[in-house]
Amino acid sequence: MAVATALLLLFAFSPASAAPQIHVWPKPVHVSWPRPAAAFLSPSFRIQSPYPRHRHLRRAVARYTRLVLTERHHPLVPRSPHPSASDPELRALALSVADLSPPLRHGVDESYRLSIPPAGASAIASLAAQTPWGAIRGLETFSQMVWGDPPAIPVGVNISDAPIFPHRGLLLDTSRNYYPVPDILRTIGAMAANKLNVFHWHITDSHSFPILLPSEPELALKGSYGRDMMYTPADVRRIVDFAMTRGVRVIPEFDAPGHAASWAEAYPGIVTCANEFWLPPGSDWADRFASEPGAGQLNPLNPETYRVVRNVIGDAARLFPEPFLHLGADEIAPGCWKADPAVRDFLSRGGTLDHLLETFVNATHAHAVALNRTVVYWEDVLLGATVKVSPVALPRETTILHIWTNGPNNTKRITEAGYRVIVSSAEFYYLDCGHGGFEGNDSRYDRQVGDDPAVGPFNYAGGNGGSWCAPFKTWQRVYDYDITYGLSEGEAALVLGGEVALWSEQADATVLDATVWPRASAMAEALWSGNREGGTTGRKRYGEATDRLQEWRHRMVGRGVGAEPIQPRWCALHPTMCNLVQ
Amino acid sequence: MAVATALLLLFAFSPASAAPQIHVWPKPVHVSWPRPAAAFLSPSFRIQSPYPRHRHLRRAVARYTRLVLTERHHPLVPRSPHPSASDPELRALALSVADLSPPLRHGVDESYRLSIPPAGASAIASLAAQTPWGAIRGLETFSQMVWGDPPAIPVGVNISDAPIFPHRGLLLDTSRNYYPVPDILRTIGAMAANKLNVFHWHITDSHSFPILLPSEPELALKGSYGRDMMYTPADVRRIVDFAMTRGVRVIPEFDAPGHAASWAEAYPGIVTCANEFWLPPGSDWADRFASEPGAGQLNPLNPETYRVVRNVIGDAARLFPEPFLHLGADEIAPGCWKADPAVRDFLSRGGTLDHLLETFVNATHAHAVALNRTVVYWEDVLLGATVKVSPVALPRETTILHIWTNGPNNTKRITEAGYRVIVSSAEFYYLDCGHGGFEGNDSRYDRQVGDDPAVGPFNYAGGNGGSWCAPFKTWQRVYDYDITYGLSEGEAALVLGGEVALWSEQADATVLDATVWPRASAMAEALWSGNREGGTTGRKRYGEATDRLQEWRHRMVGRGVGAEPIQPRWCALHPTMCNLVQ
Repeated sequence: MAVATALLLLFAFSPASAAPQIHVWPKPVHVSWPRPAAAFLSPSFRIQSPYPRHRHLRRAVARYTRLVLTERHHPLVPRSPHPSASDPELRALALSVADLSPPLRHGVDESYRLSIPPAGASAIASLAAQTPWGAIRGLETFSQMVWGDPPAIPVGVNISDAPIFPHRGLLLDTSRNYYPVPDILRTIGAMAANKLNVFHWHITDSHSFPILLPSEPELALKGSYGRDMMYTPADVRRIVDFAMTRGVRVIPEFDAPGHAASWAEAYPGIVTCANEFWLPPGSDWADRFASEPGAGQLNPLNPETYRVVRNVIGDAARLFPEPFLHLGADEIAPGCWKADPAVRDFLSRGGTLDHLLETFVNATHAHAVALNRTVVYWEDVLLGATVKVSPVALPRETTILHIWTNGPNNTKRITEAGYRVIVSSAEFYYLDCGHGGFEGNDSRYDRQVGDDPAVGPFNYAGGNGGSWCAPFKTWQRVYDYDITYGLSEGEAALVLGGEVALWSEQADATVLDATVWPRASAMAEALWSGNREGGTTGRKRYGEATDRLQEWRHRMVGRGVGAEPIQPRWCALHPTMCNLVQ
Repeated sequence: MAVATALLLLFAFSPASAAPQIHVWPKPVHVSWPRPAAAFLSPSFRIQSPYPRHRHLRRAVARYTRLVLTERHHPLVPRSPHPSASDPELRALALSVADLSPPLRHGVDESYRLSIPPAGASAIASLAAQTPWGAIRGLETFSQMVWGDPPAIPVGVNISDAPIFPHRGLLLDTSRNYYPVPDILRTIGAMAANKLNVFHWHITDSHSFPILLPSEPELALKGSYGRDMMYTPADVRRIVDFAMTRGVRVIPEFDAPGHAASWAEAYPGIVTCANEFWLPPGSDWADRFASEPGAGQLNPLNPETYRVVRNVIGDAARLFPEPFLHLGADEIAPGCWKADPAVRDFLSRGGTLDHLLETFVNATHAHAVALNRTVVYWEDVLLGATVKVSPVALPRETTILHIWTNGPNNTKRITEAGYRVIVSSAEFYYLDCGHGGFEGNDSRYDRQVGDDPAVGPFNYAGGNGGSWCAPFKTWQRVYDYDITYGLSEGEAALVLGGEVALWSEQADATVLDATVWPRASAMAEALWSGNREGGTTGRKRYGEATDRLQEWRHRMVGRGVGAEPIQPRWCALHPTMCNLVQ
């Protein structure tokens, strides 16, 4: 019985192997594997990298050497073909980088060519890249090709790969709720595994100011959630360095003049409507103090405002080597500025809210540019319905706009106006959508079935369940977004790329991994090699991507990232059986 | 500078203490604290329990003693009043239980009275309960009243408490995706902290059959996801015991005859339409093989079916001491049975699908009753639109119905027919809603903004984003459900209680804690002490519950349960400021 059971156990759980396939996410642009075969890695496998003085490349080589020799990845469905023990083992991967000098900046060459010779032809694979950052992309690809215990790898493969879009990011809001540094590091590591290259750190907002700035320590000493919920300069250095070594740029955002209630803890005088309830009783939505709970905007008429903001920008430039600096400027609530007597006086004498914003933008934008920064603003600063600035205040050479509403329509408006754009359309890329609303004392949920026939049992809370951007964006929704939809060639050339965004009103470390992954992976592939069968041509390939993403999710979990499951495991074991249409 | 910074750090982060309040979730029915005061626990604090031979009570006492002395809970907002070091410490909690004999069953007395004398009056608090299970509820309450470092507790408090509904549960589906035993144990521990008392273990379904049954081992040997993704009898004993010691009943569910594709791995002959694609090409929804991917139903015309099912029921009765046994019987797809020649033959000779189901129910229900079980079925078995049985097949004394659609309307239909009911209405209690659909190759997400004006950018995928029961049920939505809405007193008396449900098509261990908590806590309070200011009378108290739930979520995280955040932390520090209306 025991023997029979053992045999049953041995054979019962071997799902049929999948057809030969290279399992790399994002899918590389070109893969050639004419005669599928596999070989084992030698136990003494090494990455030969003749560049000991490039610190980041050196550390990447060490990291990936360790990974491929220790990961022992077991796919959901065994890969084929199996490695042949009689074939020679792969002994090394030889790196060659054409130019070590380019720093990690927007648009740096991330291409690479990976060549693993057929078994017997050579025991050494080669990875060639233009820059160290391309080499790091190639190393990640190589690591995903390794599988099993002992580790094996496809041989007779040639891959050439490069991203379609240079800007592929994740926004993380660490103001609404705090994220410990280890969680941020783990997220950046997962980004690198997905070839995402921009960590857009939305550090401050109305709810907390967690970063301890050397020239403005009181902003965090008084505005953070607590001494154990701050980011010190040492924390920032650690995050920036950890990211750079993985080819990830860190773009900090200091949202202003809106979304700035937290600044009032240290400087009550520079914030209007601070500590007001966000919806004045009996008022219209148009008169709100803020678009969500937590009201306070920087006062453009107070000179102290500029002293503080200049210090913040100065510290940002010192702490973050990245040339792009995000200064927010979204969602100005007219009511919040009008709550200030000096503002009302200004308006009564012919001034406008647009003037106020422009005054603020002119001063702060110039200061950032003087520090050699390119400033990124949210679309509102140019497209805002109630408060915006003239394009004159936003020089195209030093300004990038970041869209978040109205899909590609806003992308078109921005690029038609000649600006470069980053895309985070909520309709596709906002990861927090579809989770209801966080406001308390909300009677809209208190509808018993049958209460109001016009409001069905699934239509309460305004039909979107309390979430303005519902429904929840599935990975397929994220994947399918064409960020240059409807644009001319010239307009599309101004689209730098995109970012999925995790706003943290209802998120913190307990949900971080599962909320970001694998949905961010979906955007990662669409922006790296496209979402169509031929990359950018042919039919959309979300159907074919499903099983690959299940496998990739499984691998990320094995690597310590708590990505959410996209389907029952059964679906990966029965390809196409969980489709809507086969 | 260092001293100044230290002082700033000391004072900067002390939020104003909240008004005196007893922080226990669920809120106890009666709390009397006329002169708020607090005292420290003695370092040698003990729980005096003169019941060494009641194994579960003994272990609970040990567990709670350890908890109160080591937890060191720091609330988001410091509690008041602060304990006075000059007042005597609380030295002990004396337990008295009126009747040790009642087993953990439906309807067992869970009431308790907790009395902590004013400082100086006595150094010993007292906890009195009718049964050990009430004592365990009271111990949990006591543990939540302890806070700080060193631990302190309110004194001069009297609490009397008892649940409104005897059945307060969580359903966990471990078939669509597997959950390791430690994750199940952690979940049961969190349930006990919330005074939830039923773990409805939806063990099997179409996607996997993870439980290794002694008389039918091949069901799991062939139908589980793998040898490391099974539940052995030892695992089951461990889970049942761990739960019982916490006053949590484990009700197993073996869903049949639908949702049974996984049985076909061991017994292909007893499953109709096994391994068919769930939606036959070109067919109507009415002709589907299954309501979701994964098709296969037990064949009521095959005698082998009954041999296997009787073995399964027999093993269930041996492994699970709980008198309630859930036998599913939901979502019979006519098309799946009609795919079988013998069924078609039966139907052609005047038989009906109802006959088939009734044959199955009669045989299997009787077998369970013969083993002293009360059978729980999903509502479909009586209310199904296309396939159902006559009430004659479902004796009221031995049958309970479990509703999941149509809110209290279905509760009314069930109770009007004289049956006891458990409530899991999807409109309020399904935790998986609002997460899109899991089916692959789903073109409905591929709608660029502007593609189809009739389908707005937030209306794709049928308006619900792919999730049939969207939107996502926020904690307020869960909290506000009145499960006896519209019922007469007699009908309401048949409502045993409710269960929130985590269906696992898109869930496994990485999302378990955050998907269940704290939303299950919301139902826990509504079913224990109500969702109104006076418990069952007065206004709905979801407004007042918000800050309490933020604190309780924070505490659960501290206790190792990764509950999701319901708001920015800022909201707890600024009560009412994050309300929709103040």
